[in-house]
Amino acid sequence: MLGQDDADTCCPGLLAAPLGEEEAAGLAKVFKALGDPVRLRLLSMIASRDGGEICVCDLTPAFDLSQPTISHHLKLLRQAGLIDCERRGTWVYYWLLPEMTDKLAGILTRPGAGATS
Amino acid sequence: MLGQDDADTCCPGLLAAPLGEEEAAGLAKVFKALGDPVRLRLLSMIASRDGGEICVCDLTPAFDLSQPTISHHLKLLRQAGLIDCERRGTWVYYWLLPEMTDKLAGILTRPGAGATS
Repeated sequence: MLGQDDADTCCPGLLAAPLGEEEAAGLAKVFKALGDPVRLRLLSMIASRDGGEICVCDLTPAFDLSQPTISHHLKLLRQAGLIDCERRGTWVYYWLLPEMTDKLAGILTRPGAGATS
Repeated sequence: MLGQDDADTCCPGLLAAPLGEEEAAGLAKVFKALGDPVRLRLLSMIASRDGGEICVCDLTPAFDLSQPTISHHLKLLRQAGLIDCERRGTWVYYWLLPEMTDKLAGILTRPGAGATS
């Protein structure tokens, strides 16, 4: 409920009114994190995982890239607020932070298209 | 209707199933175009304009940037399929291509959140 209120207050939508400089700077960082095919595929694998989380050991085999490279991409997604992670024993597990994708979907939605306010 | 069907067919959503390499490459280009604060502000000014289009002469005064720099950013937004433009006499006029922002909003929406299928 709090998240919902915050979203209503903070983000009238990219398409409804000109963005301020600060808001544009914050959003640009998130879109930049999405502006890479490997990061998009990683985010998609994490978000679509049954059970809501995925071991890094199940992510790396899908790519022809080194573990440090994958870790770097995951770090950028995490810094953008799109995912979070936790180490358990040998492996790190990742999950989606849906508040951020909800926020992006919201600001890309045309005014009046499904909005309640 | 056709657009709706296309969207349903082509884009099951970033969050619903792992993205393929080709789809990820295409989407990454669009997100990369959004990954810059000046381009986000330009897109927002274009999209929120009453009447649906805006003269480049009304865009440049909002930025402390040269006309060629603004034109370069607009070109990247256009190449990403987010806006289109037309020259009329002295000035170029820009407008939003809402199909692309609709597509991005759709793929960032969680499965089951408002989907009809």
